[in-house]
Amino acid sequence: METEQAAIQQQPSAAGRTDRPAMHTDGIIYVGKKGVMSYVWAVVMQFNNGTPEVKVKARGRSISKAVDVSQIIKNRFIQNAVIKKIDLSTEELQSEDGSMSKVSSMEITMALSGPMVKVERQPRDFAASEQAPAGFATEAEV
Amino acid sequence: METEQAAIQQQPSAAGRTDRPAMHTDGIIYVGKKGVMSYVWAVVMQFNNGTPEVKVKARGRSISKAVDVSQIIKNRFIQNAVIKKIDLSTEELQSEDGSMSKVSSMEITMALSGPMVKVERQPRDFAASEQAPAGFATEAEV
Repeated sequence: METEQAAIQQQPSAAGRTDRPAMHTDGIIYVGKKGVMSYVWAVVMQFNNGTPEVKVKARGRSISKAVDVSQIIKNRFIQNAVIKKIDLSTEELQSEDGSMSKVSSMEITMALSGPMVKVERQPRDFAASEQAPAGFATEAEV
Repeated sequence: METEQAAIQQQPSAAGRTDRPAMHTDGIIYVGKKGVMSYVWAVVMQFNNGTPEVKVKARGRSISKAVDVSQIIKNRFIQNAVIKKIDLSTEELQSEDGSMSKVSSMEITMALSGPMVKVERQPRDFAASEQAPAGFATEAEV
């Protein structure tokens, strides 16, 4: 599981942003190096498909992006999306030289508080461009 | 409160890492641009002074660092430190040109599950150098 997750994160995503949807297995979205909207779209798609709970997972610096994902979903796409649980932990990873290093990880469990209530605009509008909605400072440090 | 927090984060910390302890008011540590150990040390100091609960707050990209702070405290310094609550939210900030932008924010509430039980080493060892303990990959994306 650990190894599988690392493999997923080191795949094409490392080559930069692409048009492909974010990697996901049922109900789990791993946030990595793609644009934030790629993950937002992946989560919305899961809820659209009837998945009752979606876990948004991230490690290291991607943790901030995972939080952005949860907030953009709540504020811009699904009015009744709720954060059910947040888990923080430390994972140990083996580097190429064989040494072990620790990295923080986060898992945000999201759910709907009833039948899905969408916010005015459709996610498809944003997914094509992979841009954050205007005014959401996902890239800038404030 | 909003403005005050912004002011704190834009203070000397923006000039880079310094020897000064991280900015804090009673029981609240704002995580910004300093080295992670600066904030770890500030939290440990608060618990040492008898503060029952310490809130670790961060916005934008500093959110990942705030998670590192909580994990380093639990794993390396205070054995019985617990995360009582995690709040995620969106804050609206006014840029210099007057436009509003949104940014994710996080608040991790930490407490002790009894009298403080320290992990072998003393925080002072790390605070001087502001280095993360060996093996904690706080700077690298994995």
